[in-house]
Amino acid sequence: MVEINEADKKIQKELNAGTSAIVLLNIMDRAVKPMYGYQIARHIETSVEDMPMTHGSLYPILRSLESNGLLESEVEPSISGPPRRYYKITESGHETLKRWIKIWSQTKIFVDTIMEGEYDDTKY
Amino acid sequence: MVEINEADKKIQKELNAGTSAIVLLNIMDRAVKPMYGYQIARHIETSVEDMPMTHGSLYPILRSLESNGLLESEVEPSISGPPRRYYKITESGHETLKRWIKIWSQTKIFVDTIMEGEYDDTKY
Repeated sequence: MVEINEADKKIQKELNAGTSAIVLLNIMDRAVKPMYGYQIARHIETSVEDMPMTHGSLYPILRSLESNGLLESEVEPSISGPPRRYYKITESGHETLKRWIKIWSQTKIFVDTIMEGEYDDTKY
Repeated sequence: MVEINEADKKIQKELNAGTSAIVLLNIMDRAVKPMYGYQIARHIETSVEDMPMTHGSLYPILRSLESNGLLESEVEPSISGPPRRYYKITESGHETLKRWIKIWSQTKIFVDTIMEGEYDDTKY
């Protein structure tokens, strides 16, 4: 576990902001049937060792993806508790994800190229 | 080049917010002498094929890194134009970068694990 201070929290939060939407859209793109928020959060938890965000932070992202037309949802009653909002990906979401995967890949290349690069002071 | 729309711009902007600070701190950690903003931007441009942010967006990040004590700066006169603010990394910046590199690495693992994972509907 990484030591936490204010600057670290800010970086983590900023990285999460971009990556969470990509991750959620990706999960919904491969879901075989509509999923509700808690189910998605549990899927993430069981897939990765350290889930960098809280369950609660996923809901605003799901709503934002829906308001952008990338997901659509339906509320259905649940036997065990309050009604659940089930999300599924739209065609626009599917197309958008393809571009986001490219953006993510370019971001990784950008950061890792700089990190691994030698600093050559003679060039500028 | 990736097609651009509003949702794509938002994702790119969010990813840049977190990664730019890591990239800048990394460059300053390996600089052999203090550097000014334009010099840093040129270094990035010559290091990567696609620089995902504008020159102008780097200055607020440099100031923010300084106000968090991760960089320090001095203004020096320039023969060819207005005075330049030269930045160098602090000891705290050096230590912080080590943690940020871990955070970045965990973020990549998180996103890529989800992206590459099989969705197993039977588990939840």
